[in-house]
Amino acid sequence: MRKIYVIGIGAGDPDQLTVQAVKALRRVDVFFLLDKGAQKSDLIGLRHEILRRHAGEPAGESGQGRGYRLVEVRDPERERAADGAGYPGTVDDWRSRRAALYERAIIDELSDGDGPGGDEGPGRGSTGAFLVWGDPSLYDSTLAILEEILARGSVRFEYEVIPGISSVSALAARHRVGLNRVGGPVQITTGRRLAEGWPDGVDDVVVMLDAHESFRHHLAADPVIHWGAYVGTDDEILVSGRLSEVADRIGELRSGARARKGWIMDTYLLRRDPGLSDGSPPDRP
Amino acid sequence: MRKIYVIGIGAGDPDQLTVQAVKALRRVDVFFLLDKGAQKSDLIGLRHEILRRHAGEPAGESGQGRGYRLVEVRDPERERAADGAGYPGTVDDWRSRRAALYERAIIDELSDGDGPGGDEGPGRGSTGAFLVWGDPSLYDSTLAILEEILARGSVRFEYEVIPGISSVSALAARHRVGLNRVGGPVQITTGRRLAEGWPDGVDDVVVMLDAHESFRHHLAADPVIHWGAYVGTDDEILVSGRLSEVADRIGELRSGARARKGWIMDTYLLRRDPGLSDGSPPDRP
Repeated sequence: MRKIYVIGIGAGDPDQLTVQAVKALRRVDVFFLLDKGAQKSDLIGLRHEILRRHAGEPAGESGQGRGYRLVEVRDPERERAADGAGYPGTVDDWRSRRAALYERAIIDELSDGDGPGGDEGPGRGSTGAFLVWGDPSLYDSTLAILEEILARGSVRFEYEVIPGISSVSALAARHRVGLNRVGGPVQITTGRRLAEGWPDGVDDVVVMLDAHESFRHHLAADPVIHWGAYVGTDDEILVSGRLSEVADRIGELRSGARARKGWIMDTYLLRRDPGLSDGSPPDRP
Repeated sequence: MRKIYVIGIGAGDPDQLTVQAVKALRRVDVFFLLDKGAQKSDLIGLRHEILRRHAGEPAGESGQGRGYRLVEVRDPERERAADGAGYPGTVDDWRSRRAALYERAIIDELSDGDGPGGDEGPGRGSTGAFLVWGDPSLYDSTLAILEEILARGSVRFEYEVIPGISSVSALAARHRVGLNRVGGPVQITTGRRLAEGWPDGVDDVVVMLDAHESFRHHLAADPVIHWGAYVGTDDEILVSGRLSEVADRIGELRSGARARKGWIMDTYLLRRDPGLSDGSPPDRP
């Protein structure tokens, strides 16, 4: 039976893997690495550093190394809908194309360990892994794709999820803040949704996947922002303060870093005064 | 200068510490352990297991071991307000009493490393740590207490937060589910708040600190529930399904486990059909 690990590898610091994740890495025969294009080559390098540090050396021509292999899966082009309404449908199509690619890779690269056509030589192995930045439970499609592959029925496998340090936990730790206030809720949402309005019923909001500085829609409420980019890496940038005072600086740092590196991965926590509705002035002295 | 680590130690599996956390454990001279009363002795045992496995042996009378010490801090009694309204105030009082105890322990047990009265003998050391279940950013008061101690001004220290696997990530991994749906938000809240009503604007809700099975208030909406207790430990219990079909079983498992062990630590994800308002029947076939 094929076995697949979905392993959360943390938000960027190669030491932010758990001991459980390191042990799983060492049982893997084939790492399926998603190639998202050259502009994110830093991330590919960081992933290799994680493997080098924690999984040892790959199978070498010299016959040394433990014997795992890296298989690159080319990500299908993702069409971005022009309007928000088309977004879930577009994602579904893209997910199905990705499922077909993963399915092919799993069939081709992992032995099913029994029957004819099984173990076809040294190093093929029956254990695969997908490495997921942060934690597999937040804004990641790997689990849904694996379920789709199983539903298609042409290949069987077991799979196990190893949780990781999310970019949310990493951000909060670097800013040394809690996400919630005493007994209060916190919402995790996207830049797209934050641009539509402050979420109902919460004063503490974590924003991920924000390509458009959506915090600027909430300057009037003037929440405190705890912002971070490339958290846990050598390129880490952190900014905290009243949004009205730091929004422009975050914008500049963001554009500068994105221009320099070709990509950016940032997250932030917005913390509004309790009871303050969006846009109205504070009702306390 | 005294240095304090606040270390997230995961949700129960001793291998769910990060490599970063393990490295921090090994730099610590004094672990401040909170004694919350005998009924949670399982958790104290688990914490000792984590130290034994990852930090090595404490300083022994034989002179062996690396030389860290365990200092137990007795938790102040927490008065629970009869009504919800008094809750934050009660927490503030309790937090201040806890801050006074921690402050005393930091002054007494950690050397400040300079000036007279500094290093007063072998093994005292200037590096302390507080171990936090899950991740220090979610429903934990340690960071607020350390800030309160610094604000009081009678002792100075640096502190650093090491993120941990939250019980939320651990739960999602064991159920192999994402917390959010495509592009959608997720709210993390408390049992107390869930009992007051389904949170506005979200269909996916993670509930922590629920002593009263508050999910029962939402049987009419009949969300899917992914529930787990003692996640990651030998006592782990997991249940998934339509709430109407599994609520009673969760209730029985919960009471049984709590009676047997004397305490329970559980978390759950509620996933409602999108667009379905609480209590109304589904508007689709």
